[in-house]
Amino acid sequence: MTLKRNAFYAQSGGVTSVINASACGVIETAAKSKKINKVLCGQNGILGALNENLIDTSKESKSTIAKLKNTPGGAFGSCRFKLQDPINQKKEYDRLFEVFAAHDIGYFFYNGGGDSQDTTYKISEMAKKLKFPIQCIGIPKTVDNDLPFTDCSPGFGSVAKYVATSTLEAGLDVKSMAETSTKVFILEVMGRHAGWIAASSCLAATKAGDPPHIILLPEVPFEKSKFISQVKQTVKKNGYCVIIASEGTQTKSGKFLADSGLTDAFGHKQLGGVAPVLASMISKMGLKNHWAVADYLQRSARHISSKTDLDQAYAVGAHAVKLAIAGKTAIMPIIKRLSDSPYKWKIETASLKNVANVEKTMPKKFISANGFEITAAGKKYLRPLIQGEASTKYKNGIPEVAELKKVLVQKKVS
Amino acid sequence: MTLKRNAFYAQSGGVTSVINASACGVIETAAKSKKINKVLCGQNGILGALNENLIDTSKESKSTIAKLKNTPGGAFGSCRFKLQDPINQKKEYDRLFEVFAAHDIGYFFYNGGGDSQDTTYKISEMAKKLKFPIQCIGIPKTVDNDLPFTDCSPGFGSVAKYVATSTLEAGLDVKSMAETSTKVFILEVMGRHAGWIAASSCLAATKAGDPPHIILLPEVPFEKSKFISQVKQTVKKNGYCVIIASEGTQTKSGKFLADSGLTDAFGHKQLGGVAPVLASMISKMGLKNHWAVADYLQRSARHISSKTDLDQAYAVGAHAVKLAIAGKTAIMPIIKRLSDSPYKWKIETASLKNVANVEKTMPKKFISANGFEITAAGKKYLRPLIQGEASTKYKNGIPEVAELKKVLVQKKVS
Repeated sequence: MTLKRNAFYAQSGGVTSVINASACGVIETAAKSKKINKVLCGQNGILGALNENLIDTSKESKSTIAKLKNTPGGAFGSCRFKLQDPINQKKEYDRLFEVFAAHDIGYFFYNGGGDSQDTTYKISEMAKKLKFPIQCIGIPKTVDNDLPFTDCSPGFGSVAKYVATSTLEAGLDVKSMAETSTKVFILEVMGRHAGWIAASSCLAATKAGDPPHIILLPEVPFEKSKFISQVKQTVKKNGYCVIIASEGTQTKSGKFLADSGLTDAFGHKQLGGVAPVLASMISKMGLKNHWAVADYLQRSARHISSKTDLDQAYAVGAHAVKLAIAGKTAIMPIIKRLSDSPYKWKIETASLKNVANVEKTMPKKFISANGFEITAAGKKYLRPLIQGEASTKYKNGIPEVAELKKVLVQKKVS
Repeated sequence: MTLKRNAFYAQSGGVTSVINASACGVIETAAKSKKINKVLCGQNGILGALNENLIDTSKESKSTIAKLKNTPGGAFGSCRFKLQDPINQKKEYDRLFEVFAAHDIGYFFYNGGGDSQDTTYKISEMAKKLKFPIQCIGIPKTVDNDLPFTDCSPGFGSVAKYVATSTLEAGLDVKSMAETSTKVFILEVMGRHAGWIAASSCLAATKAGDPPHIILLPEVPFEKSKFISQVKQTVKKNGYCVIIASEGTQTKSGKFLADSGLTDAFGHKQLGGVAPVLASMISKMGLKNHWAVADYLQRSARHISSKTDLDQAYAVGAHAVKLAIAGKTAIMPIIKRLSDSPYKWKIETASLKNVANVEKTMPKKFISANGFEITAAGKKYLRPLIQGEASTKYKNGIPEVAELKKVLVQKKVS
């Protein structure tokens, strides 16, 4: 009889440039553990468990697993899929535990944001009810940085570095064109309900007058006349104006500027296109403008990932394994900030019961009085998260990424 | 009496992530020359000469000048300004030569694309007519890669590397989301009349089935039904589809797709943007999609510049000075390819008379029969241009760029 049991790991929700570093942390730490046999990864998140599509990571070489740290996206496939409420729909849970039993899964790791940790929590509750021996640990991830309790969400720091760098670079471009051509540049970034990503653009400025000049946050109701006046003033003063807009920029009544009327699997409205709406307003002011929409580029830009973020993503994965083999369940490792400068942090834990479905938005003290800038307190919070450059290996001019074999375990449940 | 005369250098048209490397090449090479005293840079291109706003580069430290290699945008300011035809409008030329004479300008360097080299050529012709002793040398630059004679245009290789890297990274993101969410991703890139930038995305693929799956070029008339059928087939085969679209994608009759006119939530007509137009078509197919518009981000992304491109940008700047002090005029240094792999190149020259106002589009042999892919010949041409990573120094989490003092020379002409 062996004491070793298998672990299940899966990726859920929107992916990040460092979510695979968390996977790497799980797999490499599990390999050193005397309690874990194989790490089986769900193909496309929890669907991999429901459909019994389990990728056997023991078939991958150590160097391929190590390369996960350099690979953006979700290497095992992600999903937008919310488990039903167990009271109404027990079938999904029966199926899950059938698959877990068949494959001797004693450890469950789910790498995702708020919605995904709701799934982890539900599974842990059901396991308790069924007396199924399994440790359920959440692994935090979301570029939106809206998870509660943790200092930051792994994935965010890299987007922040991408956005700050892009703001700096594009800002220099617009500045050089402004005399006879483009005077206003708009960059649309992610962030439906929380403006953390747009806010991070403030780190591009090193002196007064530097871009970004206007930041639009979902937390601050959009007022057209105030916005137009701010653009006018900025162009008059600096000769040009750089605007960073959250996709979730909305009016006081909660109307998204870019509402396309589409919804995703969780019932969230799908957004995109606040930049062209703003560009239209600015053109009417008679100011030549350009606009960019970063969309997936920002959250997959592993080539400009923050070293701090990459380290944290790996650490929460590795720590999740340690918690599981210590017999913990229904918790999630989180980042605890110990100091700002130099940035020091350690791993603590949060109960999944409290994590699920809570969104952390920008505190008021991080937003300037006029609503368009980030305060010194906000910068102090954000700055450490973009520190350090995660090394990127290139081959033939492009980043080298992990090429997984993705061998599926033989199905045991019909 | 000194034999040394001053040089004028200016940047023109849309800027690039490496145009300042050409400036650095000019300034550092001039500093070693016995024939050149100071390099005076036009503030905002040729307007700097017309307005007698001349930046004295001798006031900058050597280390600041060296940092120009790390700085995107046009450090001295660019302009979109075309000199009048000298036959109709001699006044502008009189003014130019008045300023040149007052500041003892014996060397004229203009860093730009086709339109800008038209300016250089006109000035050289007028100088000849006026018997004004000045060497006029063009320095090539354009992200569009549409300059004739040269193997490539400095600035293009870096955009190509940005687009190939972004296609690889965002492609991995979409692939991991496709099972339950986004199935189609569209990236809009620059290229009004030539598809070189969109084409460079082909370098992201390392095996069959890899993104990009569909490339839309201005050179290939857009046919909606053919496009939709290709998207459908690609999603069926691969589970997802990555599309890279040139901003200049157009129908057979020359109508730009971006002029199709979508309206936003306020009922305003949206400006530009081929990506949202394509997204709208794909949404009607019932496929969830995301879209990005790279705009200025692509051409200012110095942090992911191609080392090859940076080296060439510096070399054409340095070589321009050598040509000038050798008494040449009305020419432009160009890149001559000696071999593909390893890529070897040298500097040759082209007459500005032949360069001005000619656009080099993609040759047919680089485009696949279906019009959506790049052939092996095209890849062989493009691949060398993205090789090598130009080193980037970071400070406090963001790239460190040159901070110029930009001291203006005292005006001598009223």
